[in-house]
Order: sequence, then structure tokens, then C-alpha cells
Amino acid sequence: MLLLLLLLVAAAQAVALAPRRFTPDWQSLDSRPLPSWFDEAKFGVFVHWGVFSVPAWGSEWFWWHWKGDQMPAYQRFMTENYPPGFSYADFAPQFTARFFHPDQWAELFQAAGAKYVVLTTKHHEGFTNWPSPVSWNWNSKDVGPHRDLVGELGAAVRKRKIRYGLYHSLLEWFHPLYLLDKKNGFKTQHFVRAKTMPELYDLVKSYKPDLIWSDGEWECPDTYWNSTSFLAWLYNDSPVKDEVIVNDRWGQNCSCHHGGYYNCQDKYKPQSLPDHKWEMCTSVDRASWGYRRDMTMSTIAKENEIIEELVQTVSLGGNYLLNIGPTKDGLIVPIFQERLLAVGKWLQINGEAIYASKPWRVQSEKNKTVVWYTTKNATVYATFLYWPENGIVNLKSPKTTSATKITMLGLEGDLSWTQDPLEGVLISLPQLPPTVLPVEFAWTLKLTKVN
Amino acid sequence: MLLLLLLLVAAAQAVALAPRRFTPDWQSLDSRPLPSWFDEAKFGVFVHWGVFSVPAWGSEWFWWHWKGDQMPAYQRFMTENYPPGFSYADFAPQFTARFFHPDQWAELFQAAGAKYVVLTTKHHEGFTNWPSPVSWNWNSKDVGPHRDLVGELGAAVRKRKIRYGLYHSLLEWFHPLYLLDKKNGFKTQHFVRAKTMPELYDLVKSYKPDLIWSDGEWECPDTYWNSTSFLAWLYNDSPVKDEVIVNDRWGQNCSCHHGGYYNCQDKYKPQSLPDHKWEMCTSVDRASWGYRRDMTMSTIAKENEIIEELVQTVSLGGNYLLNIGPTKDGLIVPIFQERLLAVGKWLQINGEAIYASKPWRVQSEKNKTVVWYTTKNATVYATFLYWPENGIVNLKSPKTTSATKITMLGLEGDLSWTQDPLEGVLISLPQLPPTVLPVEFAWTLKLTKVN
Amino acid sequence: MLLLLLLLVAAAQAVALAPRRFTPDWQSLDSRPLPSWFDEAKFGVFVHWGVFSVPAWGSEWFWWHWKGDQMPAYQRFMTENYPPGFSYADFAPQFTARFFHPDQWAELFQAAGAKYVVLTTKHHEGFTNWPSPVSWNWNSKDVGPHRDLVGELGAAVRKRKIRYGLYHSLLEWFHPLYLLDKKNGFKTQHFVRAKTMPELYDLVKSYKPDLIWSDGEWECPDTYWNSTSFLAWLYNDSPVKDEVIVNDRWGQNCSCHHGGYYNCQDKYKPQSLPDHKWEMCTSVDRASWGYRRDMTMSTIAKENEIIEELVQTVSLGGNYLLNIGPTKDGLIVPIFQERLLAVGKWLQINGEAIYASKPWRVQSEKNKTVVWYTTKNATVYATFLYWPENGIVNLKSPKTTSATKITMLGLEGDLSWTQDPLEGVLISLPQLPPTVLPVEFAWTLKLTKVN
Amino acid sequence: MLLLLLLLVAAAQAVALAPRRFTPDWQSLDSRPLPSWFDEAKFGVFVHWGVFSVPAWGSEWFWWHWKGDQMPAYQRFMTENYPPGFSYADFAPQFTARFFHPDQWAELFQAAGAKYVVLTTKHHEGFTNWPSPVSWNWNSKDVGPHRDLVGELGAAVRKRKIRYGLYHSLLEWFHPLYLLDKKNGFKTQHFVRAKTMPELYDLVKSYKPDLIWSDGEWECPDTYWNSTSFLAWLYNDSPVKDEVIVNDRWGQNCSCHHGGYYNCQDKYKPQSLPDHKWEMCTSVDRASWGYRRDMTMSTIAKENEIIEELVQTVSLGGNYLLNIGPTKDGLIVPIFQERLLAVGKWLQINGEAIYASKPWRVQSEKNKTVVWYTTKNATVYATFLYWPENGIVNLKSPKTTSATKITMLGLEGDLSWTQDPLEGVLISLPQLPPTVLPVEFAWTLKLTKVN
Repeated sequence: MLLLLLLLVAAAQAVALAPRRFTPDWQSLDSRPLPSWFDEAKFGVFVHWGVFSVPAWGSEWFWWHWKGDQMPAYQRFMTENYPPGFSYADFAPQFTARFFHPDQWAELFQAAGAKYVVLTTKHHEGFTNWPSPVSWNWNSKDVGPHRDLVGELGAAVRKRKIRYGLYHSLLEWFHPLYLLDKKNGFKTQHFVRAKTMPELYDLVKSYKPDLIWSDGEWECPDTYWNSTSFLAWLYNDSPVKDEVIVNDRWGQNCSCHHGGYYNCQDKYKPQSLPDHKWEMCTSVDRASWGYRRDMTMSTIAKENEIIEELVQTVSLGGNYLLNIGPTKDGLIVPIFQERLLAVGKWLQINGEAIYASKPWRVQSEKNKTVVWYTTKNATVYATFLYWPENGIVNLKSPKTTSATKITMLGLEGDLSWTQDPLEGVLISLPQLPPTVLPVEFAWTLKLTKVN
Repeated sequence: MLLLLLLLVAAAQAVALAPRRFTPDWQSLDSRPLPSWFDEAKFGVFVHWGVFSVPAWGSEWFWWHWKGDQMPAYQRFMTENYPPGFSYADFAPQFTARFFHPDQWAELFQAAGAKYVVLTTKHHEGFTNWPSPVSWNWNSKDVGPHRDLVGELGAAVRKRKIRYGLYHSLLEWFHPLYLLDKKNGFKTQHFVRAKTMPELYDLVKSYKPDLIWSDGEWECPDTYWNSTSFLAWLYNDSPVKDEVIVNDRWGQNCSCHHGGYYNCQDKYKPQSLPDHKWEMCTSVDRASWGYRRDMTMSTIAKENEIIEELVQTVSLGGNYLLNIGPTKDGLIVPIFQERLLAVGKWLQINGEAIYASKPWRVQSEKNKTVVWYTTKNATVYATFLYWPENGIVNLKSPKTTSATKITMLGLEGDLSWTQDPLEGVLISLPQLPPTVLPVEFAWTLKLTKVN
Repeated sequence: MLLLLLLLVAAAQAVALAPRRFTPDWQSLDSRPLPSWFDEAKFGVFVHWGVFSVPAWGSEWFWWHWKGDQMPAYQRFMTENYPPGFSYADFAPQFTARFFHPDQWAELFQAAGAKYVVLTTKHHEGFTNWPSPVSWNWNSKDVGPHRDLVGELGAAVRKRKIRYGLYHSLLEWFHPLYLLDKKNGFKTQHFVRAKTMPELYDLVKSYKPDLIWSDGEWECPDTYWNSTSFLAWLYNDSPVKDEVIVNDRWGQNCSCHHGGYYNCQDKYKPQSLPDHKWEMCTSVDRASWGYRRDMTMSTIAKENEIIEELVQTVSLGGNYLLNIGPTKDGLIVPIFQERLLAVGKWLQINGEAIYASKPWRVQSEKNKTVVWYTTKNATVYATFLYWPENGIVNLKSPKTTSATKITMLGLEGDLSWTQDPLEGVLISLPQLPPTVLPVEFAWTLKLTKVN
Repeated sequence: MLLLLLLLVAAAQAVALAPRRFTPDWQSLDSRPLPSWFDEAKFGVFVHWGVFSVPAWGSEWFWWHWKGDQMPAYQRFMTENYPPGFSYADFAPQFTARFFHPDQWAELFQAAGAKYVVLTTKHHEGFTNWPSPVSWNWNSKDVGPHRDLVGELGAAVRKRKIRYGLYHSLLEWFHPLYLLDKKNGFKTQHFVRAKTMPELYDLVKSYKPDLIWSDGEWECPDTYWNSTSFLAWLYNDSPVKDEVIVNDRWGQNCSCHHGGYYNCQDKYKPQSLPDHKWEMCTSVDRASWGYRRDMTMSTIAKENEIIEELVQTVSLGGNYLLNIGPTKDGLIVPIFQERLLAVGKWLQINGEAIYASKPWRVQSEKNKTVVWYTTKNATVYATFLYWPENGIVNLKSPKTTSATKITMLGLEGDLSWTQDPLEGVLISLPQLPPTVLPVEFAWTLKLTKVN
């Protein structure tokens, strides 16, 4: 009897210890908890790089706008600048990446305070930034750079303890097998079998990504893409099964409903705290993800706009993935450097309120200035965006105690405060000349012993 | 009883009328009789065209000599003329074919007297000269010419009632899936399934070739290539099952033993009459099949050498396939035009002894001059290569009768002859100034009523 | 007698009315007063554009560093990125200027507050940005842009009432005639007669510049260059004789001593008020005047540094000429746009203290913060660079009166002040949050009724 | 008295010995006897090479047809094959000459039997094939080949004792100074002074040509070109004054009237013996002097046509200058090699009747076949073009003697002949098979002891 009991206990333990296996359906896959590193990371850098960096005009959807929806501006661009008959593939040899020094990029991303970096391994154009065996002569090893861009950046990034994510587009606008499947109402899967799934498995095995940023799913159901099979393998048997994170673009109607964390649409911002981990992705150049030569200051996000978005996103439980597009020769132009370094400078002072923080019970208040909250280990952080003219910030949500202490990140000393029945806690900001302030915008108050 | 008989007869007829089906093994496939057009054609033009026409240096094996066996001359060529890191695929956009006018080619081939034309649809480099759906961005529609070269030439050639053959290389030197299979000792067939067989079927269905000139078979057995399955389909069910001809390069140890007609090695010439239909392929530029800029007169076959080879080949039961290599911009340079037109001019006079002829019971004699025989409808043709100084040709093999008549193709009137017990028939050639002779070399005597 | 007197008076008037003529020597030329527009302009934009914008690497001295002093880094750059034998002239067809929209540039320069723009019409490389008849096929009309860059920019700039200056290099590093003269110890003038002087005259006649920014003089005396003849013609007979301004680079030992205003060395800053009008030229990219792809934030001047230099230069009686280098395709990259717009934004508020101002009797003070003075119509402007922590600026030099009023440019209302026997006038700055301050750095105090 | 006599004699000798000096007028210049080497040479090779070899389409007048008379075909060619705005100068970097091996060319020209070679040093496009100091960046050293083509070919040619001639175009279609002079009705000489004359002197001093083949004179009188001054210097003081030869294109109305030997028009053939030394220049490609890719056999001169022209020209006292156009990469394509080698092969046998021969008292007869005469040292040579069917050539002009001997060049043994009162000497040709004849066309009879 005892023996039996022991055996039962052992069996139960065995069950408990045996790694749980996922089945290829959303119910099972959605039940997997997200590895914790992702929520702690909060801030990542997104990199859009490909053959579209050669024309570098309009946007990274260049090919589509030219040949897909045939926008006159794109057609004129080609007519005016290239000989008749020039094709998109003819651009590829000019994608030289000759000044691509992955360590310089990684240093910049580290200085920006990024905890993860996501690179486009293959955008909708189908060109792979690694030597894919099923994309012969349409990849970065055979044509153009003649280098394994995915591998090189990964090595440099990881040397600096930054997590490495891989963007991958399921669809390829003009792949003949994809077009064939489309013509067949996606009842055939020639493309999935010959191209996109072999590549996704290859990426995981070759580069062991921490994150897979799936895209290009929108024209077909996940059953066409075989997404759930892939994810089951990824979670059960892949070399990254314990740490890998994925997003939510795995088939029509999937986004915002299934997968790992949610991106929902590009640049999606929720109005209130979502009940599922999410990420806001956006681009320094508001008008393009890929580098375009015709960019002007009118579409470049200002430093304070970027910081605001970061603060707001984290406060609402999201991660912030900020995109830049390198040039065809592998350089990150100064305006992008400047913006990234500005984020890094701000995080140097205020990172305490961001990294590994959690949403607080209240996300935001709008009094004289807008305030966004986060919390970590019983401390509450309130970041306000505009400095009130009278030098007094009032916060209604935190409940002070006699032990409450309030400081500003980046400044020595406590701030004086009083409690007002209507306005909440009134905090007196220091009278400092602008050059002495810890940061130029979005100052963070740290409140301890509040409720 | 009668009824039974009738039924039996009907059944027998049904069997006879039902198309015979081939099984995917050599015994069955080798038993298929060759469609008759091929033996009657005798003379074809071979065209080597591809990305190798861009460097146009050394030979069409440029890529292999450079990157495969790494010949110093090829490596130096690249170092001296291209920036570091330039790859073979980077050549492709310069394969413009901008002056390719298929009708001009076809006219030239017609003027040359060719009855069939064979184009490289894909050489060992893997670049396809048609829009292959499994060779995306490594084909002539996506990169370089931006045209369907296979289709365009086919249309032009057929307009002139010339048969159209497609050269196709089974292997691709540097295809990653082929290299993977090779690494696996050819126990896997990733490449065959993803690339080479889909393309071969696609070629047949799209262009309905009269001839498939297979190549690149030598590293693997036919079981790797799935050749017999393909041929069984080709003979049983393809749209060209009745007329199509193939050669003998379908797997290791196949050449000279199995398939349709035999090529054996490149430029192979048998010493005596083979018992199987064969074809001699050779190139006007003795040192290369593809166009190379560094060609000089020292390697260009002379007109009389070409005619000699043609005469000898046909006499020995073969077909003669003469190659030229167009330039990257789609031109056939004058020296190749000149050689082809010279063949055409000779055939204009002597074609009667060539087209649709059969080997005679004797192939050749060497008396004062070398003589090659053919026959057609009881007529014997004897082509002699050098004009004897005494103006008398003697033939030992034909047995004259009193009704025997001898003429020279291209000349009016009978030639006088006598029979000599030792020397055979002695034929008096006319005393003509060189400019009046029907051709400049290889004159054909036509003998009727001989045995 | 009366008649005589009348005649004498008439003669005297004739003398007075006759335009004064200059002789081709420095004594005469240096005596010409500078047309007033230049001193009033204060701020200009300098544009370095040429074939050097194609390699866009290192600096606009690319050719010299590569072929002249043969710096290994430049030689390596060529070896690694171009085929052997590639020459500097081979770059020219890639200087496309295809996105050059002169009106967009002019708008940007106007938004930057520039009152004059100086374009390199020809740098030391000798390539002319206009169709020079003595620089055939080495000019922007024949090769590359196929446009008259000098003419197009001039039209756009003048449409906005901005003055237009032309940079012109006397020497050309590698011009064979220049090298020949150099070999002859500059005793021959082949180059001067065939190239550099014809071009300078052509520029003046064709484009009627407001300013000639001469350079490249340093290897030869002005007697080699025939500078004084040119200047005498320019001042006496040219179409721009009344308004044109020149700088001081007209021959060895000329700079800082002769000509129009003085540039002295590049980026020259005097320590105290010079007694001759001068101009400080400098570049947003501290390490290059021409665009270079390898630029990073570490060499980009910060906005406050630029403003400081501007303030200091004007205070010391100079003009400030700030350089940017457009790309080979005619774009001004965002980081340069941003810096220029920052200057414009600052001048919007503080231009009153800059444009048409004069140096005051004191140029600068260093108390708690550095202060730079200018004056205009009895008003004194004091611009301080750092905001004092206690919110009080003290100025020792201005002598207040009871009527003295002090304001800050960009702010409504007077500032309160008191006079201290030791510290001078103590001015209380307003307590304003950073986002409300009129500018982010370098605030200008306006003092009226002071002595 | 004796002394006086001696002095007179000495003076007379001094006059005799003193080199005669020419004055810059045609009377004087035309009186200079032609150095003898030229008439002895008889056969030369002409080489047209320049930037026109890059488009290599239409003809070497490409630029003019495109931009000058704006032929639609040329405009279409550009529109269809190049991006908008592409200029002629943009072709230059592609003129690589990378396979130009001057010794291979010289060997070929030697094998062709050429005694002189004439290279275009500068065609009407103005691009100089040597590093001209007044054609900076529009010459073969600065752009494209990066080599001194004129110098390199000269060295190779002279190593083989072949004379070296320089083609030079006086005009340049689009040179801005030439256009300026033209606008001024050729009353100014900016272009002559700055460009064309400095270059002509430079060519003579640098390369010491044996021949100057002037061209491009037709729009202006010799007084514009300063031709007579140049020629006076050339004949009096230049380093080549003793041996140099020039042609007749030195100004409007000059050609066929003044200068050295006469070219008259291109491809000019006189009907009877001219009284002035002349030269026929023509091109293997009848439709172009420069290489063009679109050449077909229909415009290639046949071997017998070339030999006929050579024979006829020499018989009429002329020299024969046969042109070929190399490719942009410095190769002479096989068809040109073949034609040149055919001439060499013919001259190997028949050169005795050509080199250093003189016109005979009769130039030509037309009996059954056309015959052309030359003579040397009392021997008469009669070259007949077609082999008479009856094997008998009759010559009416030579007066036989009893000692007369007749042979055929390339054959052993005397030919038998008889004298006929009406038909002249009847010469029996040997009965030889075509392959044994010394040459394939144009056989030369050598007659000694005839009058």
C-alpha cells in the first residue's frame, strides 16, 4: 500500500517534471507563459534592411508600390532614373553593405539602452539576409553584400548581452509559388513547403533567436501557413524552446488574438491597460521603416515624442520597439544615431522606472501635466511630460503615508510635498536652470512608501 | 465461331491500336523507336547562352574554373577587373539581351541549312533562360534580359519549320540543395525534387520541345535523378510523346548506353558505323561553347574543317550539331555568321546527299583523296574532300553497270568514267577554274544505277 | 572770371562724379570700402558639393589624400571597393544630382536665417559645377548631373532675396597645366591663362555673384595668379562692381592682409576685435566640408556649439558661414537640415541682436556665465550662454541709467534689475520651466538707455 | 682669283648643304618631295578607336547622329537602353581597353603585311587617346583605359619595323570653344589656340609620327586652323622633319589640292593614274569605321573584294589603308583578324608585285579577265582577278621579246606563251586543282624582258 502510494507520488512527480508538450492548436499554444526576459526588456531596436535600401525611396514597400499597385510616383521614379527594363532584382548587386560593421551597430544599440534588437531577415520582397539554401541567388551571401548579415549582427549584439530577434515575413509579394497558391485560393501550399517554412526552421536552427517577429500573414489563414505546427515544434523541440518569444502574426485573424505577445496593427497603441503582453513598434522616420533618401525633418520623430511614446507604452504594459533603416552600404545615418542616443541618455537617468517595471494600478493621470505610472518592488514611478509653470506637480492616485519619500531620478535630495484633499499630493519641483535639469523632457518622480 | 474469330481479331486490333506504354526502366525505355524526323534532319545548330556570356572569358565553365577548381587565371581575371567581393550572380543584370531579335537568329539558322536548333535553357550555372517558378530571381525574366528567351526563340524557329530542342543540365554546380545532396552521398534528393525535375517537367509542358538535350548527369546515378520516371512520363503522357527525341545523358554510366540517340562524350566521333543513332556536337570556337571575348582565329574552325566533319558524321550515320555562343546583348558575331552561312551555301548544293540520307554499305575510302559515302533511294553519293591533281577520282566500292550515270552536284551534265580492274571506277572531273566550281571544297559525286 | 570759376566747379564736380578707378595693386584695391550688405548679413550657409560627394568618404580632399599624399586609408578604400585602375574621373558619372531641387535647398537656407549662400563652383579637383567652356567634359553639364548647378541654385536663392556667393579654387591639384607651371617654378602661367582666370571671369559675367570666395591660392604669389588684375576689373568694370564682395585668398601671404574681408585660416577665430571685417567659416561636420557617408554623431557640431560660435563671431565683428555638404544625388541629409533649422529657430527670436548689428565697445565678459555683446541703434544686446543657477545674470560693462530698460528677446515684459557697485547690473531672470523659455540656450538680453 | 673661286664654290656647297626651309604657304609646302618610304609601303592598317567604341552602335559618328543631326534611330537607341540624362561623356569610363595587348595587335598587323599603321589619336569627339595636357579628364589616361594608347601601340608597332601614323581630327563637334569660334564665323581662334594646335604639336613631339593623317578640316579655311604654320614647323624644325608624311586635309578646299599625298574623299578611287601620290582608305566593315556591335556579314567586305581593291589601288599609284575598329575592351574581333590575315597570306605570295612597285605605262586591261599592272626594276607584273575558263590569259599591252619569260608568283616553273597579232601574248595557265593554286583569287603573272 505504501509502496503503491510511493509509486503514485513518483508518477505524479514524473508528470510534473516531464516538460509539458504543446499541441499544434491555439488553445494549447496560447497557454504557454511568456518567458520573463521579454517583459523585463521593455525597449528594443527594430532594423529594416534589404534590397529596398537600394532604391531607398518612398518606403520599404517600394516594389509593391511600383509593380503591385502601380503607383504613378513610383513608376515615374523608375522611368526617370533607370534604363527601360530595369527590374527590382537588378537592384540587388548594389546592396553592398560595404561599411556594415556589426559591432558599431551593436554599440549604438547598447548606448541607446536597447535590451533587444530585431532584424528583418526577409521582408515581403523575399530577399534573405542570410544564406538560405532555398533562396539561391536571392540572398545576401550570393548577391550584394556577400555576407551573412543575420549571423554577423547576431554575434555582435549578443556579445553585449542584448537579446536577438528575427523579423520574418511569411508571404513574398511576387514569389511565383506564392502567386500560384494564391491563384489556387490557397488550397495548395507549394510556397509554404518550398520556401517560407523551410526558411523559418532554418532560421531557428541556425541563429537560435530569442524572438521571432512574424509578419506578412494577412492574406491567408494559419492553416495555409502551417503556423501552429511550427510553433508547437518551436515550443517543444527547438533549440530555443525555453526562452523564445513570438508575436501574434501567424495567419488571418490571428493578430491580437493568438500567438505570443500581441502587436496588433503596426504602431498600435491601446487606450487602457490590455490584459495581454503587447509591444508597440514604430519608426523614427514616421513615413518609412526602410531607409529612404528623400526623408526630411518633417517626418522624423522628435526626441520628446519618442520618449513620450516609450513612457506611455511601458506604463500600459507594453514594450517599445523603435525602428531605424540602415543604408544600402550598411550605415546608420546620423539623425538615427542622434535619436537612439537621446533615448539612451534618457534611460541612463530614468531606466530605473522602465526596465523590469510593471504597470501600476493606475496608468495615467492628466492634471496640469500628463503623468504616466509604473511600479517596481513597491516603489511607484510617475513620469510627467511637461514642467508645470508654477513648479508644482500634483498626483491624485498615490496615497501617501507619513513615511512617503519623493525624489526625482537624476537629482540628489528629496523633494518636498504636501497632501491636498482635492489635488492629491503636491510636489514642489526644484528651481533649476534648464542646463542643470537631469533630462530635457519627461522627468520621473520616484515615490516610496505610498499606496 | 466466325463471331468468335471476329472478336479475336477485334481484340488483337485493339491491342495493336492501344498506345504502347513504357515502364520506368531502361529495358522498356530503350525499346522505343526514335521518331523519324531526327535522323532525317542531319544538321542542327546548338546555342550556348547564359550568364557566362557576361564575363565572356575563358569558357562557359567560367564559374566553375573560378570558384570550383579555382584556376589562377580565372581568379586573376576577377581580381584585375572587378571590385573585391564581386560574385557570379552580380554578373546577371549585365546579361541584357538587348539586341536579341529571335527572328534574325532563326533566319540565320535557316540560311545555314539547320533542321533543328538546340538552346541551353539552363546550363550548370542554374540560371534559367525562361521564367522558372522554382528559380525565382535567378532566371531571364526576373534578372537581366527580362524576357522569356526559351519561348521567344522557339516561336521564331518554328515559324520557319525548324525543330526546337532544349538543352537542360541536371546538375547545378553551386546550388545549395545540390551541394547538400552531394554531402549526403546523393542519398537525399532535395535538389531533384525542388529544382531540376520540376523544371524539366515545366519545360516540356510550356515549350513542347522536339528534343531534350540532357546534360550534367555525370556525378550521380539515374536513380538519384529520377530520370526513368521522367522519360516514362515523357513517352507515355507528355504533350510531345509522339515526336520527342532525347539523348543519352540521364545518369552515370548512361551515356552511350541508354536513352534516345547517343552523344557519348562531347565531340565524340566513332571510327566505324555505330549500330545506334548518334549525334556529334561540336563548336565553331574549338575552345569554348559559350561566347568569349578573347577568342582568336587560331581556335575558330575553318569552313572546310566544318564541312568535312559534317560529311564524315552523316556518312557514319550521325547528326551534326554545330554550336555558336551569342553575346550577352544577344548578338551572333560575324565570324559565327560567316561559318554558318558557309555551311548553308554548301548544303544548298550538296544537301541532296545529306538530308534524309542513310549510311551506305561502305562508309569511306581513301584513295588519292578521301571519299565519304551516303545513299538515298538507290542513289549513292560520294563526297571527296581534295581535288586530285590529275583530275581523276577513283572509287573502288561502287559496282558500276552499263546504266550507271555519274554527275557532280551543282554541275550540269554527266561525267565520263571508265572501269579499271584495280582502281575501280575512274571518274574524269571537269577542268574548271576555281571560281566556277560549284563549291570550294568537298565535292559530291552522284552515282545512279550502281550496286 | 566768373566763367572760369564756373568751369572749375564743373570740373571738380566731374571729378567727384566720375567713378573712382582702382589700379591692379594692393594699395589701391585694399582701399575699396566693403559694400555694406555683407556686414549686415552676418550669417551665411556654405555648400561644398562636387565629385568628392561621390566617394563621399574621408573628406572633400579625397583625391589628394588618395593620389597626392597617398594616405594608406584612402588607398585601401579604393582597393577594397573598386576595380583596379578606377580613377577619380570615373566617379563623375555617378554625381547624378538627381534629387537636387534648388528651391528646396533655398527654402531650407531661408528657414535657417541665412542672408547669403556660398556654393563651391569648382573645388581643388577642378570639376566645375557650371558648363565652363574651358573645362569640357569635366563639368556638371557634360558629365554627371547634366545641369548648371551654379545657375540653378543662384536663381532659387535670389528668388528669396538671399545673396549669392561663389566659391572658386584658383589651383587644381592635378591639372596638367598647373603641374607644368609648378614644375617651372610658377614662372610660366599656362594654367592661369587657359583655365583658372577664364573661368573666374566667366563666373562673374554669367552669374553676377554678390561674393567671390577665393581659395586654393597658397602655393603661388598673386603675381602668378594675376589676382590684382582680376580684382581691378571686378571693381572697375564688371557687372557687379558696386555690390561685390571678395575674401582674402588671392596669393601666398595675401590671406589676412589683402583683398576684401578676411578669412585668414579655415575656422579662424580672433581673440579680440579685429580692425578689419572678417568671416568665420566652419562646417557642421567638424571633420569634413564635403558630404561623407562615414560621418558619425561624434563629429557633428551640437546645436548649442553652433549658436555659441555664431554669437561669439558676430560679437567680434565677424560673419558666420556655416557649411553643409549635400549628397551626390543632391540631398541635404536630415542631420544637416536639423542643425540649420535650429539656427533659424534661434535667429527667429534673437536675430534682432545679430543682423545688422555692430560690435559694442566691449565684446565679452565672463562672470558666472559667458556674455557676448552686440549693439544696434544705441541698444545693447548681451547674449549669455549658460543660465545661472541662481537665476541672476550680472553684467559689468553696461552703465545703467535711470531710464534703462532690460528685456529678454522672445519674452514679454521687462526684467527687474539692480545696480551693484562690484558686480554691475544684476538682472533677475524669470523662473520659467524649460519648455516655456524662448530658446534652449544662448538667451539674449536687450538693454536700452545704457551707456 | 682662285681664292674667290674657292669661296664661291664653298658658298654654293653651303647652300646645297643647308637644309632647305619651307615657308608657311602652300606653294612652298607643296614643293616638298614626299619621303620615299611611303610610296614603297603600299599597304597600311587604319585603326578607329575611341569612346564611340563604347555604345558601339551605328557608327563612330554616334555622338553626332544622336545630338548633332538628331537621328531618330540614335535617339531611340539611347532612350531604350540608358537612363534619362545619360550623356556621351558618361560612356567614357566604360572604354576600359582591359584586354588591349599592343603586341598582339602589332603581330596581327605584321601578319597582314602592313607596312604602316594609323591610329585615331583623337576623333571628332575630342577624346584623346593619349594624356593630352589640354584635354584633362577627357583622355585615355585620366578616364576609361587609364593608359597611353597612342604611346603603347606605337612602341609595339615600331618594334616590328612598321611605320606609325597618327590620325588627328582638327575639329571637335561639340567643343565649346569650337562652337564659340563657329558662332563667330571662325573669325576667332580660341579653339585652335587652346586645343587643337597645342595637341598636334604635342603629338609630334611626344610620339614622333611617320605620318600625320589629318581630318575634320572641312568647316573652316586653313587660315583658321593655322595649318601652314604647323606644316612649315613640321617640315623645318620638328623632330620628324626628314621622314614625316602628311595627307591633304588641312582646310576647306585643301583636300585633293594641297598637303602631302592626297586622300581626297573617304574611299576615293581615281579612274586613271593620278599625277600625285594618293591613298585609298576604306574599312572592312563597309558601314562603319568604328566597331559596332550590330555589324552583320552583309556589310563585311569579302576577302576577294579587299584584294581587288588593293591590287587596283597600287596599280593606279595609290597606297591602300584598310580600317578595322577594335572593341571598347581592346580586342580585334575574329572577322577582322580573318580579313587581315587573308591579305597577309595573299601578300606573302604576291607582295613582290606590290611593295615598292611603280605604276606601269598601262594600268589595266579588260580582256576575258580584268588585269592590273605594276612594275619594278624592268619587270612587269600583271594580276588578273578571274581565272579564265579556257585557262588562257591574253595581255595586249606588254611587248614580248624573244627573251621574255613569264611565271606565276607562287608557282615553280615558266608558263608557256605565244604571241598573237590581235590578242597579244597568250599565256597558258597550269591546270591545277583549286587547293594547289598559290592563292584563291587575284593571281599575279611576272613578265621579264618585256617592253
